[in-house]
Amino acid sequence: MRIGIIGGSGYTGVELLRLLSTRDDIDIVFISSRAQAGNRVDALFPSLRGHVDLLFSDPDAVRGAQCDLVFFATPNGTAMVQAPALLDAGTKVVDLSADFRLQNIAEWERWYGMQHTSPDWVQQAVYGLPEMYRESIRTARLVANPGCYPTAVQLGFLPLIEAGAVQCDTLIADAKSGITGAGRGASVANLLAEAADSFKAYAVQGHRHLPEIEQGLANMSSAPVNLTFTPHLLPVIRGIHATLYARLTRDIDLQSLFEERYQDEPFVDVMPAGTHPETRSVRGSNVCRLAVHQPQGRHTAVVLAVEDNLVKGAAGQAVQNMNLMLGLPETDGLLQPALMP
Amino acid sequence: MRIGIIGGSGYTGVELLRLLSTRDDIDIVFISSRAQAGNRVDALFPSLRGHVDLLFSDPDAVRGAQCDLVFFATPNGTAMVQAPALLDAGTKVVDLSADFRLQNIAEWERWYGMQHTSPDWVQQAVYGLPEMYRESIRTARLVANPGCYPTAVQLGFLPLIEAGAVQCDTLIADAKSGITGAGRGASVANLLAEAADSFKAYAVQGHRHLPEIEQGLANMSSAPVNLTFTPHLLPVIRGIHATLYARLTRDIDLQSLFEERYQDEPFVDVMPAGTHPETRSVRGSNVCRLAVHQPQGRHTAVVLAVEDNLVKGAAGQAVQNMNLMLGLPETDGLLQPALMP
Amino acid sequence: MRIGIIGGSGYTGVELLRLLSTRDDIDIVFISSRAQAGNRVDALFPSLRGHVDLLFSDPDAVRGAQCDLVFFATPNGTAMVQAPALLDAGTKVVDLSADFRLQNIAEWERWYGMQHTSPDWVQQAVYGLPEMYRESIRTARLVANPGCYPTAVQLGFLPLIEAGAVQCDTLIADAKSGITGAGRGASVANLLAEAADSFKAYAVQGHRHLPEIEQGLANMSSAPVNLTFTPHLLPVIRGIHATLYARLTRDIDLQSLFEERYQDEPFVDVMPAGTHPETRSVRGSNVCRLAVHQPQGRHTAVVLAVEDNLVKGAAGQAVQNMNLMLGLPETDGLLQPALMP
Amino acid sequence: MRIGIIGGSGYTGVELLRLLSTRDDIDIVFISSRAQAGNRVDALFPSLRGHVDLLFSDPDAVRGAQCDLVFFATPNGTAMVQAPALLDAGTKVVDLSADFRLQNIAEWERWYGMQHTSPDWVQQAVYGLPEMYRESIRTARLVANPGCYPTAVQLGFLPLIEAGAVQCDTLIADAKSGITGAGRGASVANLLAEAADSFKAYAVQGHRHLPEIEQGLANMSSAPVNLTFTPHLLPVIRGIHATLYARLTRDIDLQSLFEERYQDEPFVDVMPAGTHPETRSVRGSNVCRLAVHQPQGRHTAVVLAVEDNLVKGAAGQAVQNMNLMLGLPETDGLLQPALMP
Repeated sequence: MRIGIIGGSGYTGVELLRLLSTRDDIDIVFISSRAQAGNRVDALFPSLRGHVDLLFSDPDAVRGAQCDLVFFATPNGTAMVQAPALLDAGTKVVDLSADFRLQNIAEWERWYGMQHTSPDWVQQAVYGLPEMYRESIRTARLVANPGCYPTAVQLGFLPLIEAGAVQCDTLIADAKSGITGAGRGASVANLLAEAADSFKAYAVQGHRHLPEIEQGLANMSSAPVNLTFTPHLLPVIRGIHATLYARLTRDIDLQSLFEERYQDEPFVDVMPAGTHPETRSVRGSNVCRLAVHQPQGRHTAVVLAVEDNLVKGAAGQAVQNMNLMLGLPETDGLLQPALMP
Repeated sequence: MRIGIIGGSGYTGVELLRLLSTRDDIDIVFISSRAQAGNRVDALFPSLRGHVDLLFSDPDAVRGAQCDLVFFATPNGTAMVQAPALLDAGTKVVDLSADFRLQNIAEWERWYGMQHTSPDWVQQAVYGLPEMYRESIRTARLVANPGCYPTAVQLGFLPLIEAGAVQCDTLIADAKSGITGAGRGASVANLLAEAADSFKAYAVQGHRHLPEIEQGLANMSSAPVNLTFTPHLLPVIRGIHATLYARLTRDIDLQSLFEERYQDEPFVDVMPAGTHPETRSVRGSNVCRLAVHQPQGRHTAVVLAVEDNLVKGAAGQAVQNMNLMLGLPETDGLLQPALMP
Repeated sequence: MRIGIIGGSGYTGVELLRLLSTRDDIDIVFISSRAQAGNRVDALFPSLRGHVDLLFSDPDAVRGAQCDLVFFATPNGTAMVQAPALLDAGTKVVDLSADFRLQNIAEWERWYGMQHTSPDWVQQAVYGLPEMYRESIRTARLVANPGCYPTAVQLGFLPLIEAGAVQCDTLIADAKSGITGAGRGASVANLLAEAADSFKAYAVQGHRHLPEIEQGLANMSSAPVNLTFTPHLLPVIRGIHATLYARLTRDIDLQSLFEERYQDEPFVDVMPAGTHPETRSVRGSNVCRLAVHQPQGRHTAVVLAVEDNLVKGAAGQAVQNMNLMLGLPETDGLLQPALMP
Repeated sequence: MRIGIIGGSGYTGVELLRLLSTRDDIDIVFISSRAQAGNRVDALFPSLRGHVDLLFSDPDAVRGAQCDLVFFATPNGTAMVQAPALLDAGTKVVDLSADFRLQNIAEWERWYGMQHTSPDWVQQAVYGLPEMYRESIRTARLVANPGCYPTAVQLGFLPLIEAGAVQCDTLIADAKSGITGAGRGASVANLLAEAADSFKAYAVQGHRHLPEIEQGLANMSSAPVNLTFTPHLLPVIRGIHATLYARLTRDIDLQSLFEERYQDEPFVDVMPAGTHPETRSVRGSNVCRLAVHQPQGRHTAVVLAVEDNLVKGAAGQAVQNMNLMLGLPETDGLLQPALMP
């Protein structure tokens, strides 16, 4: 299979290379970066020395590369412009940006502050959360790869909402992300000198992942959904921890509910009762690891969900979607254990 | 004033020394550590070279030191045994452990797993949160210094509950603490190799600070209080961030509510509307810094509260209480700016 | 191949599991930990959930496991007692401890503070640095896996000393190690609260790796070797950076010297001239990455060498040795790119 | 005393504010930042809320502020242009940049890549290392505050070179700096995602502090000086650790040599024999802490020197110089213990 990557100089780009470069069935034939065009990929990312023998290309050259599938690891607003021509030429696309995630175009335009140029393709796009939409992904031409927070939050709430066991209008997601979630751009706020040995919330008034999550939760529920979503910045490189709160509407065995819902899912791991997942336990792996609690036996369910924001929260899930779209085994290339310690 | 410290080899002990050693009005005459007895304090803590010229003593020698006030920076269960004799001899006591914090002895015994040996002194103890109990502290013989989480959580909820503006039976505190909160004991779980570059929740089923916080919140409220409290471990040295959620029962100007409640408080800082406090902004200082949000204008108030767990969450608040108890200016020795970056 | 691990609850143990658990040609049939005997491995190391379905055994049960090869990931002093019986029974052994590294028994006893119980096996042991002793390793029954510092320091000095281009009696190795090098034992000094956001040298008067390195360097040189070795503790989880200084005795093209020496080595990577390797560029990989400089064109060569102390510095090199000893391709299971960022 | 700060939005600027804002004898009347002009200082640095009630001004307004002394905390090349007018008007100046550090103008121009506009003031400038030049500093109109690395390296070598006890032409300084040394500018390389949990050398071919250090060492020595200087980037916020190597030319009691040289120095602390200073032991304090070793009793002296790069390595030493220049007690405002843990 011939694979291309548009936007290869960021963290999701290099992570796609890490996951794909050791596979025999995948041939990475194209990787672009406007700023790095002409430079060796392994000069920017020395960890790939000996693994990737490519130069960065200009993104406009992608059409000549005749790819079976192209990943967009680009800033928001790029894929909606460049993907349609590839799709029309028969290339499949996994977009890791937000361009095709929200079905409501007006909502998308309000949160992302630009006009959408491909509303038709939004309708055809499949939201790439395999635990919800696996069969549609298999036949999709265009997959909108979920955001990092939305993956953890949706997987954590899914069993509760599907079972109708919680109030859907008082949900709370207190989420914490490692700093790679902010991307590889130069910024004062994300300097080690600013962010290390510290912790803060951000975007409490409204984060772009709020409408994406609420859309996903609404698809699981017959009742109206209302979520309070509070993102925080962790002084760690990789890792998301979502702590989810939901008011229970009836007595239910939470542990069994979660274990049964995910028993056949290769990348969702329900921990034993009473335990607490650590983000490092999924560092570099495609697993979302969950634990569910009912503190003091009271009426609130507390779900703990961890993932690597660059793997199950981005590039790993994108590869999982690619596997499904290309008819390959879903877990191919995604079964390495986490790097711990 | 002659001051003693029982249990000086832990983090709250060395922090008391840092805060007190530069003061002219305070004479530290005694510091104990059973394990370190006979050793120089600055051999264990080289940061105090040139500042503290003392040896660690055996704790039993404290009575000969004729202190005006003694801090207990000891594990739970020590002060309740040793403090009464000092108190009977006229020495004032600030206990940084949990021994005198819970008025309900049975509750204390259940959470701390031992029998209480001084229930009478529990009744006489004043809970050392000056923003609630300042006048009682001034005349107290024994002050129970609040826990680190309880300080941040109570100060964050206080204006909302006093104003009767929120449902008190669905409160949520999602709290994150730096690792010094776990103390200076050797442990695998708190090794840098285990805790760095990672994040997890712990004690979700029940943490000892839950009853302490619920007791404090109940004192602010006429309605029954029910709190879901989820502690997490941050890979930072110092700092607590409490993210608090409360359902609003009526329209109210949250920013004004908080600013007015705390306008005369020297160690509570209400940030401007729309901002997010960082834990590093209080690193080494005695300030609890708050911001209050009402995301998307919906019905949930979100309070962000940060403090240094070793200062306002422990030793700094203990010094603040000492100042009040000894009739000194409340802010003496506590006005250094935070160390940032 | 049936593989056993003695001492599986430490960092080198779990790292062996990470590297071996995905291989089809390797069957881990035995893993021991006296303290954890009877417990599931993945309860201690949740990162291995779904990858390792074993219980910890008592080490004494190893003989019943009929292993082709056994790794000792034990504290110093254990393998010298337990390995001989296995060796006599025809099992091959890779010892990751220091028991068989020093040919001079008296020297070993002085540095390690105990009497050696297997001096005969010391003579038969092959030092497991494939870049020096590959052919001997292929036929060895017992391999002494090098220490973490010694691997980086020897690989960095090797081209210079072999070429006779430097003074061997004024060598300096200023080495910095991540904290996993100190092991997984509970200790105050290695707490995150003690070691994070800080840096220090340690054991400057004499570190156990000094005689091991000097022995190795002497094997490369016809001239007497004298090394000043200064270890430091880095606040990172994995990674060693050795900065090596040697006085040049003649003009030589250092870049070519290094590239030629290592051109056929699969796990030594010589960076382009003028560059600086980062420890994260080898995080989780078996590569030792080198750069060589001659600052200001003066008479001192400066070599920068990085490795992951748990991989090329321990478990990865042990697997490389295992591959050689079992006649498998040397690089099997060791070609994953580093985890970066 | 009326004090001004030019360039107040960087790390040395905010550190000057931290050190000066609590003093009664100092009135900060002016602080500039071209980019932040008109904004509140405590909006940029919330740690200063309640401590600094100033707006950033345009730097050109400094002359109207009628300062007794002005600090330049500006990028290289600014002070040499703007300071002369202030000096001519009778204002004293402490320049924290490199503009006046090198007496050899041609050398300065080569390393800093620009033409020097004030060579006359270079000659009048006094190098602000009080342990070497205290009396000249007292009467200086212009002090060139030393670089961070040069302070630690010079203080570490000083006793050895003054005593003529080491070869001066084979000196080695292996230095490691926390990331605040790189300043507060946005950059990819200094992101937490790039620099955390990693370590690297940089500028091994030549760093601007090399000529500054060699100039200083030459002033201590009658013999020619030749230094190999290797800087490294530590994943810590503050702190420099310099590991210094010098070949001894004769037998000498190193511990006594160091203790005697620094016995009257308020900000140089010689640790007991056999110990290892940690950078955190000087976090936030103005102390340079030293230990000296002679490993294995061989012929190389190893000096370990730590300082906080923003305090003794920058703003703290600048305040020490200000105290001297203004006839105030040298230690005023600089005696807070370090923040440890």
